[in-house]
Amino acid sequence: MPHISLPAQLPGIRGLLAYRPDTGKALSELADVLLVGDSPLSRGERETIAAFVSGRNECAFCMDSHAAAARHLLGDAHATVDAVLADPDTAPVGAKLKALLAIAAKVQRGGRNVTSYDVAAARAEGATDRDIHDTVLIAAAFSMFNRYVDGLATLLPSDPAMYAEMGRRMAENGYASRAPEASSQ
Amino acid sequence: MPHISLPAQLPGIRGLLAYRPDTGKALSELADVLLVGDSPLSRGERETIAAFVSGRNECAFCMDSHAAAARHLLGDAHATVDAVLADPDTAPVGAKLKALLAIAAKVQRGGRNVTSYDVAAARAEGATDRDIHDTVLIAAAFSMFNRYVDGLATLLPSDPAMYAEMGRRMAENGYASRAPEASSQ
Repeated sequence: MPHISLPAQLPGIRGLLAYRPDTGKALSELADVLLVGDSPLSRGERETIAAFVSGRNECAFCMDSHAAAARHLLGDAHATVDAVLADPDTAPVGAKLKALLAIAAKVQRGGRNVTSYDVAAARAEGATDRDIHDTVLIAAAFSMFNRYVDGLATLLPSDPAMYAEMGRRMAENGYASRAPEASSQ
Repeated sequence: MPHISLPAQLPGIRGLLAYRPDTGKALSELADVLLVGDSPLSRGERETIAAFVSGRNECAFCMDSHAAAARHLLGDAHATVDAVLADPDTAPVGAKLKALLAIAAKVQRGGRNVTSYDVAAARAEGATDRDIHDTVLIAAAFSMFNRYVDGLATLLPSDPAMYAEMGRRMAENGYASRAPEASSQ
Protein backbone atom coordinates (compact mmCIF):
# COMPACT_ATOMS: atom_id res chain seq x y z
CA MET A 1 0.00 0.00 0.00
CA PRO A 2 1.39 3.42 -0.87
CA HIS A 3 2.68 5.56 2.03
CA ILE A 4 0.38 8.45 0.99
CA SER A 5 -3.08 8.63 -0.61
CA LEU A 6 -2.55 8.38 -4.36
CA PRO A 7 -5.08 8.30 -7.21
CA ALA A 8 -6.43 4.76 -7.25
CA GLN A 9 -5.27 2.29 -9.86
CA LEU A 10 -2.42 4.40 -11.21
CA PRO A 11 0.71 2.26 -10.72
CA GLY A 12 4.29 3.34 -10.04
CA ILE A 13 5.27 6.85 -10.98
CA ARG A 14 1.95 7.46 -12.76
CA GLY A 15 0.15 7.84 -9.43
CA LEU A 16 2.81 10.33 -8.28
CA LEU A 17 2.68 12.41 -11.46
CA ALA A 18 -1.08 12.73 -11.01
CA TYR A 19 -0.81 13.41 -7.25
CA ARG A 20 1.28 16.56 -7.70
CA PRO A 21 0.81 17.84 -11.26
CA ASP A 22 3.38 20.67 -11.11
CA THR A 23 6.29 18.41 -10.16
CA GLY A 24 4.72 15.79 -12.43
CA LYS A 25 5.02 18.10 -15.42
CA ALA A 26 8.66 18.97 -14.65
CA LEU A 27 9.56 15.29 -14.17
CA SER A 28 7.77 14.23 -17.38
CA GLU A 29 9.57 16.92 -19.36
CA LEU A 30 12.92 15.84 -17.95
CA ALA A 31 12.24 12.18 -18.86
CA ASP A 32 11.15 13.20 -22.33
CA VAL A 33 14.09 15.43 -23.21
CA LEU A 34 16.51 12.86 -21.78
CA LEU A 35 15.05 9.63 -23.20
CA VAL A 36 13.28 10.86 -26.36
CA GLY A 37 15.04 14.14 -27.21
CA ASP A 38 18.27 14.65 -29.09
CA SER A 39 21.21 12.40 -28.13
CA PRO A 40 24.04 10.49 -29.84
CA LEU A 41 22.69 7.44 -27.96
CA SER A 42 19.76 5.68 -29.61
CA ARG A 43 16.45 5.62 -27.77
CA GLY A 44 16.85 1.86 -27.31
CA GLU A 45 20.29 2.35 -25.73
CA ARG A 46 18.95 5.04 -23.41
CA GLU A 47 16.02 2.92 -22.26
CA THR A 48 18.44 0.03 -21.70
CA ILE A 49 20.62 2.24 -19.45
CA ALA A 50 17.48 3.40 -17.59
CA ALA A 51 16.32 -0.21 -17.03
CA PHE A 52 19.85 -1.28 -16.01
CA VAL A 53 20.20 1.46 -13.35
CA SER A 54 16.65 0.75 -12.10
CA GLY A 55 17.59 -2.91 -11.71
CA ARG A 56 20.65 -1.96 -9.65
CA ASN A 57 18.35 0.16 -7.46
CA GLU A 58 15.95 -2.80 -7.16
CA CYS A 59 13.10 -0.66 -8.49
CA ALA A 60 10.96 -3.31 -10.16
CA PHE A 61 8.40 -0.90 -11.59
CA CYS A 62 10.97 1.28 -13.39
CA MET A 63 13.13 -1.66 -14.47
CA ASP A 64 10.25 -3.64 -15.97
CA SER A 65 8.58 -0.70 -17.70
CA HIS A 66 11.78 0.76 -19.19
CA ALA A 67 13.02 -2.71 -20.18
CA ALA A 68 9.71 -3.14 -22.02
CA ALA A 69 10.22 0.23 -23.75
CA ALA A 70 13.76 -0.80 -24.72
CA ARG A 71 12.54 -4.13 -26.16
CA HIS A 72 9.92 -2.30 -28.20
CA LEU A 73 12.50 0.16 -29.57
CA LEU A 74 15.23 -2.42 -30.20
CA GLY A 75 13.01 -4.72 -32.29
CA ASP A 76 15.06 -7.72 -33.38
CA ALA A 77 17.75 -6.92 -30.79
CA HIS A 78 15.21 -7.00 -27.93
CA ALA A 79 16.95 -9.88 -26.13
CA THR A 80 19.97 -7.69 -25.42
CA VAL A 81 18.00 -5.82 -22.72
CA ASP A 82 17.58 -8.95 -20.64
CA ALA A 83 21.23 -9.88 -21.20
CA VAL A 84 22.32 -6.43 -19.95
CA LEU A 85 20.07 -6.76 -16.89
CA ALA A 86 21.53 -10.20 -16.14
CA ASP A 87 25.20 -9.30 -16.69
CA PRO A 88 26.38 -6.26 -18.66
CA ASP A 89 29.92 -7.67 -18.98
CA THR A 90 28.80 -10.66 -21.04
CA ALA A 91 25.82 -9.03 -22.80
CA PRO A 92 25.96 -8.94 -26.63
CA VAL A 93 26.32 -5.15 -26.85
CA GLY A 94 29.09 -3.06 -28.39
CA ALA A 95 32.24 -2.11 -26.48
CA LYS A 96 31.18 1.55 -26.29
CA LEU A 97 27.81 0.79 -24.67
CA LYS A 98 29.53 -1.67 -22.34
CA ALA A 99 31.93 1.06 -21.17
CA LEU A 100 29.02 3.49 -20.73
CA LEU A 101 27.08 0.90 -18.69
CA ALA A 102 30.15 0.60 -16.43
CA ILE A 103 29.99 4.38 -15.88
CA ALA A 104 26.23 4.16 -15.22
CA ALA A 105 26.87 1.45 -12.60
CA LYS A 106 29.38 3.74 -10.85
CA VAL A 107 26.93 6.66 -10.90
CA GLN A 108 24.20 4.43 -9.43
CA ARG A 109 26.43 3.82 -6.37
CA GLY A 110 27.41 7.50 -6.16
CA GLY A 111 28.78 10.17 -8.47
CA ARG A 112 32.21 10.26 -6.85
CA ASN A 113 32.87 6.68 -7.95
CA VAL A 114 33.35 7.69 -11.59
CA THR A 115 37.09 7.99 -12.30
CA SER A 116 39.07 9.44 -15.17
CA TYR A 117 40.01 5.84 -16.01
CA ASP A 118 36.34 4.93 -16.50
CA VAL A 119 35.93 7.93 -18.77
CA ALA A 120 39.15 7.18 -20.71
CA ALA A 121 38.00 3.58 -21.21
CA ALA A 122 34.73 4.82 -22.72
CA ARG A 123 36.55 7.31 -24.96
CA ALA A 124 38.87 4.52 -26.17
CA GLU A 125 35.73 2.78 -27.47
CA GLY A 126 34.54 5.89 -29.29
CA ALA A 127 32.39 7.60 -26.64
CA THR A 128 32.09 11.38 -27.02
CA ASP A 129 31.51 14.03 -24.36
CA ARG A 130 27.79 13.89 -25.11
CA ASP A 131 27.66 10.07 -24.83
CA ILE A 132 29.33 10.34 -21.42
CA HIS A 133 27.19 13.30 -20.30
CA ASP A 134 23.92 11.69 -21.33
CA THR A 135 24.85 8.37 -19.69
CA VAL A 136 25.70 10.07 -16.38
CA LEU A 137 22.52 12.13 -16.42
CA ILE A 138 20.29 9.13 -17.28
CA ALA A 139 21.89 7.11 -14.46
CA ALA A 140 21.50 10.07 -12.08
CA ALA A 141 17.89 10.72 -13.12
CA PHE A 142 16.89 7.09 -12.56
CA SER A 143 18.56 7.22 -9.16
CA MET A 144 15.90 9.88 -8.54
CA PHE A 145 12.90 8.24 -10.24
CA ASN A 146 13.64 4.90 -8.52
CA ARG A 147 13.81 6.54 -5.06
CA TYR A 148 10.63 8.50 -5.71
CA VAL A 149 8.67 5.43 -6.84
CA ASP A 150 9.89 3.13 -4.03
CA GLY A 151 10.26 5.77 -1.29
CA LEU A 152 6.49 6.28 -1.42
CA ALA A 153 5.75 2.56 -1.90
CA THR A 154 3.70 3.03 -5.07
CA LEU A 155 1.51 0.30 -6.55
CA LEU A 156 3.43 -2.40 -8.40
CA PRO A 157 1.44 -4.30 -11.06
CA SER A 158 2.24 -8.01 -11.12
CA ASP A 159 0.93 -8.74 -14.63
CA PRO A 160 3.83 -8.76 -17.16
CA ALA A 161 1.38 -7.78 -19.90
CA MET A 162 0.87 -4.43 -18.18
CA TYR A 163 4.58 -3.62 -18.44
CA ALA A 164 4.69 -4.65 -22.10
CA GLU A 165 1.78 -2.29 -22.77
CA MET A 166 3.35 0.56 -20.73
CA GLY A 167 6.65 0.06 -22.55
CA ARG A 168 4.92 0.19 -25.93
CA ARG A 169 3.17 3.44 -25.00
CA MET A 170 6.37 4.99 -23.63
CA ALA A 171 8.26 4.01 -26.79
CA GLU A 172 5.55 5.30 -29.12
CA ASN A 173 4.37 8.42 -27.28
CA GLY A 174 7.31 9.53 -25.15
CA TYR A 175 6.88 11.02 -21.70
CA ALA A 176 5.45 14.50 -22.21
CA SER A 177 2.77 15.96 -24.43
CA ARG A 178 4.73 16.75 -27.59
CA ALA A 179 4.04 16.89 -31.30
CA PRO A 180 4.88 13.45 -32.80
CA GLU A 181 7.10 15.03 -35.46
CA ALA A 182 9.23 16.59 -32.73
CA SER A 183 10.32 13.12 -31.53
CA SER A 184 13.77 11.91 -32.46
CA GLN A 185 14.30 8.21 -32.22
CA MET B 1 39.21 18.67 -13.90
CA PRO B 2 35.75 17.87 -15.28
CA HIS B 3 35.39 14.57 -17.19
CA ILE B 4 33.98 16.42 -20.23
CA SER B 5 34.60 19.88 -21.75
CA LEU B 6 32.35 22.30 -19.89
CA PRO B 7 31.99 26.09 -20.23
CA ALA B 8 34.98 27.56 -18.40
CA GLN B 9 34.55 29.06 -14.95
CA LEU B 10 31.02 27.82 -14.36
CA PRO B 11 31.22 25.71 -11.19
CA GLY B 12 29.18 22.67 -10.20
CA ILE B 13 25.84 22.19 -11.86
CA ARG B 14 26.00 25.60 -13.54
CA GLY B 15 28.52 24.29 -16.08
CA LEU B 16 26.24 21.31 -16.79
CA LEU B 17 23.10 23.42 -17.22
CA ALA B 18 24.97 25.53 -19.79
CA TYR B 19 26.53 22.49 -21.51
CA ARG B 20 23.18 20.97 -22.46
CA PRO B 21 20.52 23.69 -22.36
CA ASP B 22 17.49 21.45 -23.02
CA THR B 23 18.13 19.17 -20.06
CA GLY B 24 19.34 22.26 -18.18
CA LYS B 25 15.95 23.90 -18.63
CA ALA B 26 14.06 20.79 -17.45
CA LEU B 27 16.33 20.39 -14.41
CA SER B 28 16.06 24.08 -13.47
CA GLU B 29 12.28 23.94 -13.68
CA LEU B 30 12.19 20.85 -11.49
CA ALA B 31 14.43 22.50 -8.86
CA ASP B 32 12.29 25.62 -8.95
CA VAL B 33 8.89 23.98 -8.58
CA LEU B 34 10.26 21.71 -5.84
CA LEU B 35 12.29 24.21 -3.78
CA VAL B 36 10.52 27.51 -4.52
CA GLY B 37 7.00 26.47 -5.61
CA ASP B 38 4.04 25.62 -3.43
CA SER B 39 4.67 23.30 -0.47
CA PRO B 40 3.60 22.97 3.18
CA LEU B 41 7.35 22.94 3.96
CA SER B 42 8.97 26.37 4.17
CA ARG B 43 11.66 27.23 1.66
CA GLY B 44 14.24 27.18 4.46
CA GLU B 45 13.16 23.68 5.49
CA ARG B 46 13.33 22.45 1.90
CA GLU B 47 16.82 23.89 1.34
CA THR B 48 17.89 22.30 4.65
CA ILE B 49 16.66 18.87 3.44
CA ALA B 50 18.48 19.43 0.11
CA ALA B 51 21.75 20.33 1.88
CA PHE B 52 21.35 17.39 4.30
CA VAL B 53 20.88 14.82 1.52
CA SER B 54 23.76 16.35 -0.45
CA GLY B 55 25.98 16.00 2.62
CA ARG B 56 25.05 12.32 2.92
CA ASN B 57 25.99 11.92 -0.76
CA GLU B 58 29.30 13.74 -0.09
CA CYS B 59 28.48 16.28 -2.79
CA ALA B 60 30.32 19.33 -1.44
CA PHE B 61 29.12 21.72 -4.15
CA CYS B 62 25.42 21.00 -3.61
CA MET B 63 25.72 20.79 0.17
CA ASP B 64 27.55 24.10 0.52
CA SER B 65 25.41 26.04 -1.96
CA HIS B 66 22.05 24.78 -0.62
CA ALA B 67 23.19 25.20 2.99
CA ALA B 68 24.01 28.82 2.09
CA ALA B 69 20.55 29.23 0.54
CA ALA B 70 18.96 27.75 3.69
CA ARG B 71 20.95 30.10 5.96
CA HIS B 72 19.82 33.06 3.86
CA LEU B 73 16.16 31.98 4.04
CA LEU B 74 16.20 31.04 7.74
CA GLY B 75 17.57 34.38 8.90
CA ASP B 76 17.98 34.28 12.68
CA ALA B 77 17.65 30.48 12.68
CA HIS B 78 20.53 30.08 10.23
CA ALA B 79 22.65 28.04 12.68
CA THR B 80 20.16 25.17 12.54
CA VAL B 81 21.40 24.23 9.05
CA ASP B 82 24.87 23.46 10.35
CA ALA B 83 23.42 21.58 13.32
CA VAL B 84 21.32 19.42 10.95
CA LEU B 85 24.37 18.72 8.77
CA ALA B 86 26.39 17.73 11.85
CA ASP B 87 23.71 15.55 13.49
CA PRO B 88 19.99 15.74 12.67
CA ASP B 89 19.06 13.84 15.85
CA THR B 90 20.41 16.55 18.16
CA ALA B 91 19.74 19.57 15.92
CA PRO B 92 17.41 22.26 17.35
CA VAL B 93 14.61 21.62 14.85
CA GLY B 94 11.00 20.59 15.49
CA ALA B 95 9.96 16.96 15.86
CA LYS B 96 8.14 16.98 12.53
CA LEU B 97 11.19 18.14 10.57
CA LYS B 98 13.34 15.66 12.49
CA ALA B 99 11.04 12.79 11.42
CA LEU B 100 11.07 14.05 7.81
CA LEU B 101 14.89 14.23 7.84
CA ALA B 102 14.91 10.58 8.97
CA ILE B 103 12.79 9.71 5.92
CA ALA B 104 15.12 11.76 3.68
CA ALA B 105 18.11 9.83 5.06
CA LYS B 106 16.40 6.54 4.18
CA VAL B 107 15.60 7.75 0.65
CA GLN B 108 19.23 8.83 0.19
CA ARG B 109 20.30 5.21 0.77
CA GLY B 110 17.52 3.85 -1.45
CA GLY B 111 13.76 4.24 -1.74
CA ARG B 112 12.99 0.75 -0.43
CA ASN B 113 14.43 1.66 2.96
CA VAL B 114 11.44 3.84 3.84
CA THR B 115 9.04 1.84 6.02
CA SER B 116 5.47 2.39 7.16
CA TYR B 117 6.94 2.92 10.65
CA ASP B 118 9.02 5.87 9.39
CA VAL B 119 5.93 7.36 7.80
CA ALA B 120 3.77 6.74 10.90
CA ALA B 121 6.43 8.42 13.07
CA ALA B 122 6.30 11.52 10.84
CA ARG B 123 2.49 11.56 10.90
CA ALA B 124 2.54 11.33 14.71
CA GLU B 125 4.47 14.63 14.67
CA GLY B 126 1.93 16.26 12.37
CA ALA B 127 3.35 15.50 8.91
CA THR B 128 0.76 15.43 6.12
CA ASP B 129 0.81 13.47 2.86
CA ARG B 130 2.25 16.51 1.11
CA ASP B 131 5.02 16.95 3.72
CA ILE B 132 5.98 13.31 3.22
CA HIS B 133 5.68 13.46 -0.57
CA ASP B 134 7.74 16.63 -0.90
CA THR B 135 10.43 15.31 1.47
CA VAL B 136 10.78 12.08 -0.51
CA LEU B 137 10.93 13.91 -3.84
CA ILE B 138 13.49 16.46 -2.59
CA ALA B 139 15.67 13.63 -1.25
CA ALA B 140 15.27 11.71 -4.51
CA ALA B 141 15.96 14.78 -6.67
CA PHE B 142 19.18 15.57 -4.79
CA SER B 143 20.23 11.95 -5.20
CA MET B 144 20.10 12.88 -8.90
CA PHE B 145 21.66 16.36 -8.77
CA ASN B 146 24.50 15.11 -6.53
CA ARG B 147 25.32 12.22 -8.90
CA TYR B 148 25.18 14.51 -11.94
CA VAL B 149 27.51 17.11 -10.40
CA ASP B 150 30.05 14.59 -9.06
CA GLY B 151 29.71 11.94 -11.78
CA LEU B 152 31.11 14.45 -14.27
CA ALA B 153 33.65 15.87 -11.77
CA THR B 154 32.49 19.47 -12.13
CA LEU B 155 34.51 22.42 -10.85
CA LEU B 156 34.34 22.92 -7.08
CA PRO B 157 35.03 26.48 -5.85
CA SER B 158 37.08 26.54 -2.64
CA ASP B 159 36.20 30.09 -1.57
CA PRO B 160 33.38 30.00 1.06
CA ALA B 161 32.32 33.51 -0.05
CA MET B 162 31.33 32.08 -3.46
CA TYR B 163 28.85 29.69 -1.82
CA ALA B 164 27.39 32.44 0.34
CA GLU B 165 26.84 34.50 -2.81
CA MET B 166 25.37 31.55 -4.74
CA GLY B 167 23.06 30.76 -1.80
CA ARG B 168 21.87 34.35 -1.65
CA ARG B 169 21.10 34.35 -5.38
CA MET B 170 19.31 30.98 -5.20
CA ALA B 171 17.24 32.19 -2.23
CA GLU B 172 16.35 35.50 -3.87
CA ASN B 173 15.91 34.48 -7.51
CA GLY B 174 14.97 30.78 -7.42
CA TYR B 175 16.16 28.31 -10.04
CA ALA B 176 14.27 29.08 -13.22
CA SER B 177 13.35 32.27 -15.01
CA ARG B 178 10.09 33.18 -13.35
CA ALA B 179 8.23 36.35 -12.56
CA PRO B 180 9.21 37.47 -9.02
CA GLU B 181 5.55 37.67 -7.97
CA ALA B 182 5.14 33.98 -8.88
CA SER B 183 7.52 33.00 -6.05
CA SER B 184 5.96 31.69 -2.85
CA GLN B 185 7.19 33.18 0.44
